[in-house]
Amino acid sequence: MKEAGEKFRPIWIDHPSDVVKVIDQRALPHEQIVMDLQSVDQVIFAIREMVVRGAPLIGVTGAYGIFVALKTSKNQASDAVYIRNEADKIISARPTAVNLSWGVNRIASAVLAEKNPARRMDTARRVAGEIAEEEVENSKNIGRHGVKLIEKIARSKQGKPVNILTHCNAGSLACIEYGTATAPIYAAQEMGMNVHVWVDETRPLNQGARLTAWELGKYGVPHTVITDNAGGHLMQHKMVDIVIVGTDRTTYTGDVANKIGTYLKALAAKDNHIPFYVALPSSTFDWTIRDGVADIPIEVRDPDEVRYIPGAVKSRDSLLMPETSPAANFAFDVTPARLVTAFITERGICRAKEADIKRLFPEKGQTPAR
Amino acid sequence: MKEAGEKFRPIWIDHPSDVVKVIDQRALPHEQIVMDLQSVDQVIFAIREMVVRGAPLIGVTGAYGIFVALKTSKNQASDAVYIRNEADKIISARPTAVNLSWGVNRIASAVLAEKNPARRMDTARRVAGEIAEEEVENSKNIGRHGVKLIEKIARSKQGKPVNILTHCNAGSLACIEYGTATAPIYAAQEMGMNVHVWVDETRPLNQGARLTAWELGKYGVPHTVITDNAGGHLMQHKMVDIVIVGTDRTTYTGDVANKIGTYLKALAAKDNHIPFYVALPSSTFDWTIRDGVADIPIEVRDPDEVRYIPGAVKSRDSLLMPETSPAANFAFDVTPARLVTAFITERGICRAKEADIKRLFPEKGQTPAR
Repeated sequence: MKEAGEKFRPIWIDHPSDVVKVIDQRALPHEQIVMDLQSVDQVIFAIREMVVRGAPLIGVTGAYGIFVALKTSKNQASDAVYIRNEADKIISARPTAVNLSWGVNRIASAVLAEKNPARRMDTARRVAGEIAEEEVENSKNIGRHGVKLIEKIARSKQGKPVNILTHCNAGSLACIEYGTATAPIYAAQEMGMNVHVWVDETRPLNQGARLTAWELGKYGVPHTVITDNAGGHLMQHKMVDIVIVGTDRTTYTGDVANKIGTYLKALAAKDNHIPFYVALPSSTFDWTIRDGVADIPIEVRDPDEVRYIPGAVKSRDSLLMPETSPAANFAFDVTPARLVTAFITERGICRAKEADIKRLFPEKGQTPAR
Repeated sequence: MKEAGEKFRPIWIDHPSDVVKVIDQRALPHEQIVMDLQSVDQVIFAIREMVVRGAPLIGVTGAYGIFVALKTSKNQASDAVYIRNEADKIISARPTAVNLSWGVNRIASAVLAEKNPARRMDTARRVAGEIAEEEVENSKNIGRHGVKLIEKIARSKQGKPVNILTHCNAGSLACIEYGTATAPIYAAQEMGMNVHVWVDETRPLNQGARLTAWELGKYGVPHTVITDNAGGHLMQHKMVDIVIVGTDRTTYTGDVANKIGTYLKALAAKDNHIPFYVALPSSTFDWTIRDGVADIPIEVRDPDEVRYIPGAVKSRDSLLMPETSPAANFAFDVTPARLVTAFITERGICRAKEADIKRLFPEKGQTPAR
């Protein structure tokens, strides 16, 4: 695992081997395993099997996938058909997070714009690195803008902890550094504010219990893990001051696809007058979809992820239900814009309304392609 | 396990040993273990550790607890102080389900009304049995009334399955036979209707995945297990026609305490215009509490139930999060009456409003004690 002081990254290029390496997030928190991505098939495996996960990280991994494609097939590097084909294979690894197609398409375009085939692999390495650094910068800025929301609550609570609820992992592990939903929390912690995080365990793959709890523990942020059932009760009893989640795809009209269960927490926040924020870099906006509930593709994953417990990888043998009972595994849901208080983006905070989103991103605010 | 044809009961008195026996529900669906309740301490253990669970069953088990108290201390059987003391110990085993105090107090009164001390143990055995049979009758009637709701939907769906979502286990295992939430489902199945049940797994103790799925499988009811996060998504996409849940305590004003997470499903049902029904025998009403969210005591259980996976009892060693991360374990939440479409009781269906509840139960509809 690459660490610099307190910081670590879930993906990096090793020097001098030039190999793309990722943390195998399936094994956390029990084991810290590094996996090499030496072929496009390995990149697709890593994305599909959730070795890497989280919208910004999937985007960066997909981008590095094009570097791997060029590295493993140098003789075909000048072939636009090959590049487009590998790009499409990587994009189809997971359907919901829009960052994947965004990252892959961006690097594919940059590579194809490079007229000297001998330079394409270097271009891919460089642009993938740039995307990663941009996401770090985005996360920093999300933290800078979002921390003001926590600061305001902290002032009103006069030293008592600000209770933040989050769902799934939208932390450093889902991004490159800082995270999206966690960026304001880490910023608040650095500024010495008294914060406490309620961590939804986030069944079926328990990214909250396994990854967010691990990250927060690593950075010394006080936190408590709860079942996905518990948030409503906590909100009814004023034990939550603010909800901050990430997102895998957000429409330009403000509908938010995120890990399944997010919608239920948004309903509870609304019902209890608790602000519900979604933190995202602009790479997570989908500028083509108007109706998120109807049109964002929701991935359906292997029912065995529900039927068995996702503890350490090696112990995935604990059956939770009768052998004969079927299970269903919808991976995401969509929270309608009306339930979102505001977005925290790298450019600032804006309401979940088309006009406000387009005002913040005027270069994107054209009539959508469809 | 006591079975009669398709029927089984989770508690019974063995003949001729006169020993109270229960199914150890912690071991289901992996193992079918019968536990003897030979002392009041064992009765309290069984209730507290959820060997038995579910509001009606807890009430019946508590009632049998007084029989066990008299059986194990015959010399003290005439001592009203002893009986009251044992009753209070049993009642304090779990705080939320009102059936426990209802069942224990009813039998304690009956025993103390028996002036011949030599007959008190027989009285306890008889009255506990009567309570059990009454709950069977209540469940039957809940099924009879509730099936009409399913029938109406079935007609409008013209042969396509009626999709019913339920949370936790309010089935035969939670009652004596038929269940509460499941009674209308079993009745519909018997009448040949095409039903399909979405079973919330119900973390932390997975009563849905372990018990409801097991029961439904036993009775041949088509079902699919989902995570607690999934219900909102299913409702948004019209994959749920009706929600039916049980309850551990319902105020005379219509507020419903039930397994934690119920409130989130009620919010999603409301948001998607899906009817949300609560099935309960009158023994689950609390005629003294007006404001459920403020005043129903919510049990807080061992955080290790969240931290470890509750598969088979013997394998409770699978840690789900970092060793150092704390967890919280609120066992129930309260769904405000405004989110409840109606109650399905043994006397019929009534709206979740004080006037309607009191009209159905006029003998209870007096000014409450507090």
